[in-house]
Amino acid sequence: MNLLAPLPDAGAGERIDALLTRPGLRIERIVSHGQPSPPGFWYDQSEAEWVMVLVGAARLRFQEESEDRVLGPGDCLDIAPHRRHRVDWTDPSAATVWLAVFYPCDPP
Amino acid sequence: MNLLAPLPDAGAGERIDALLTRPGLRIERIVSHGQPSPPGFWYDQSEAEWVMVLVGAARLRFQEESEDRVLGPGDCLDIAPHRRHRVDWTDPSAATVWLAVFYPCDPP
Repeated sequence: MNLLAPLPDAGAGERIDALLTRPGLRIERIVSHGQPSPPGFWYDQSEAEWVMVLVGAARLRFQEESEDRVLGPGDCLDIAPHRRHRVDWTDPSAATVWLAVFYPCDPP
Repeated sequence: MNLLAPLPDAGAGERIDALLTRPGLRIERIVSHGQPSPPGFWYDQSEAEWVMVLVGAARLRFQEESEDRVLGPGDCLDIAPHRRHRVDWTDPSAATVWLAVFYPCDPP
């Protein structure tokens, strides 16, 4: 299986494909094509998420930060559970492909 | 953090960096530069491994198969625990960068 070709057409909306689903682990490919998160929307997830950009360009914003994180190929981030964030921008001229690994919150 | 730049010099040996270590989950970046697995060596891992090639070119062999799997950017594989495999070849002219997600074997 190849994650970069063929790419689904994400022009009409973000496309999410589960690549691996196991107890306590989910790996997804997310393909965006210019879609930001809806205005005023913040992800507030119970799971932790390690995410990287495979292809493309995006700007991710953490609610407690004043500026976007600018992300390109190879950039990765670990997002703690309930750390509110949104995608402020993805490149409208080409696909942005994310690899996301969701895993349970550490025990407190 | 960026996984593609700068890359460590793997000319003298494969380089492995742990990107995330959590109970039941380990994400690693592996950089190869022409190194195959040692002759006759087979990985025989107690963990499952989901792996993808980010950059470069490699040939991976499962012991029970008669031919190598030819892998390039975006190619991914899920390797079950104890499924014996080896890396028969990586591109000697440039770095091959792997992303590997290790996770526990499913309960039987």
